[in-house]
Amino acid sequence: MQIKPFITLVGAGPGDPDLITLKGIKAIREADVILYDALVNEEILDYAKPTCTKIYVGKRAERISTSQDYINKLLVDYALTHGHVVRLKGGDPFVFGRGGEELDYARQFDIPTAVVPGISSSVGLTGLQQIPLTYRGLSESFWVITGSTSEGQLSADLEIAMASTATIVLLMGYAKLPQVVELYTSKGKAELPIALIQNGSLPTERVVLGRVNDILTKAKESQIGVPAIIVIGEVVAKHQAFDRLKVELKAIAQ
Amino acid sequence: MQIKPFITLVGAGPGDPDLITLKGIKAIREADVILYDALVNEEILDYAKPTCTKIYVGKRAERISTSQDYINKLLVDYALTHGHVVRLKGGDPFVFGRGGEELDYARQFDIPTAVVPGISSSVGLTGLQQIPLTYRGLSESFWVITGSTSEGQLSADLEIAMASTATIVLLMGYAKLPQVVELYTSKGKAELPIALIQNGSLPTERVVLGRVNDILTKAKESQIGVPAIIVIGEVVAKHQAFDRLKVELKAIAQ
Repeated sequence: MQIKPFITLVGAGPGDPDLITLKGIKAIREADVILYDALVNEEILDYAKPTCTKIYVGKRAERISTSQDYINKLLVDYALTHGHVVRLKGGDPFVFGRGGEELDYARQFDIPTAVVPGISSSVGLTGLQQIPLTYRGLSESFWVITGSTSEGQLSADLEIAMASTATIVLLMGYAKLPQVVELYTSKGKAELPIALIQNGSLPTERVVLGRVNDILTKAKESQIGVPAIIVIGEVVAKHQAFDRLKVELKAIAQ
Repeated sequence: MQIKPFITLVGAGPGDPDLITLKGIKAIREADVILYDALVNEEILDYAKPTCTKIYVGKRAERISTSQDYINKLLVDYALTHGHVVRLKGGDPFVFGRGGEELDYARQFDIPTAVVPGISSSVGLTGLQQIPLTYRGLSESFWVITGSTSEGQLSADLEIAMASTATIVLLMGYAKLPQVVELYTSKGKAELPIALIQNGSLPTERVVLGRVNDILTKAKESQIGVPAIIVIGEVVAKHQAFDRLKVELKAIAQ
């Protein structure tokens, strides 16, 4: 049988295996090979056919660039020798997933490609927590920013974004929370509501709510760790537990 | 049998019925009543049980505010009288979906709520077109903005966002494309790649690619109309057809 090379990037969603799309499941069912990341829920691999080869390519933070080259080569090699390769990524393939680089590489070999979007943790984890990314009168936009640029820095876009009322979602930025707090405080925004969501959508999910000026203490108390997303903006106060906090504080004040 | 009122906001995704999540389908299967929007693909309603009441609440642009009150009331009335109401929305419930307002209203009646996130057209339609929202060296963030604020205006956030290299996705802004072009041109950004995606993910999908300075002509030629999203940023040049355009131009120049 002739091999028909094909590569599909599929977004697996933020963790809960039920947060993948039907289209994603259909691609997985047809896959001859699946290359999957550390943040992909392995239950999703059960949709694959019995003959499918499943390869874990979770990156180690300390050797990101070499392993990206390695993943690119694996993708192309398997497509040429096995046929349909599904590249399964946590969240959405294009939200800091380096999916664009993988497509560029595949196209050098004239391998046809497709993309199945996934629920990005930026939209999905806030949604599950009932924090609306946009809300009339509070936020007309939301800005999703990486906390770890190619140089490992907080993106300079954050300072620009702070000038607006946009809801900010910072991905892969938890290690830089003290820097974020400093930046917001220096701009007179220490009172802004902020949420930390660790292991979002999983049974181990933990959420910490507060304001910029107390979030570091709260994060320490709750022993929040990576992977966690940071959400900043007035909309965070729409979280049901945030509201309870407000009521409790009022009761204490009276 | 005692009625247990419950409201679940479910994101139906951007149009293709396969772009809903499994979790969304499970909620629909359990629904006693479904209230659905104009942009929801009606095929998705087939997952509902035979006894489920399905009500179309698509808004007419000219009476948005009154109908939102009406929808809020319907949601609560049906939850109290029928049990589990699924509010099915195009895209994601919190990306300009006014889901937050519906939750606020439901909570006044102590009705428990849940949210199932959906593929926002901002992430999903760009993904299907293989336009990466983020790309190392090109874009460290993406900003999703409404083209129609509560006052019907282009959000002022757009001018702030333009100062960054963020990929901009403008939803419900197609009618204001001339204004957007003017704004980018006035900031010396007339060469930025831009994409228009109409009826994204559906068989009727149409895509127009260009630069800020020629997109109005191209949009007219292609007779693009609403609903369409606007994507602006260097990443748009990663679209495969954009690349072909570049190659063709080079061939002509030689």
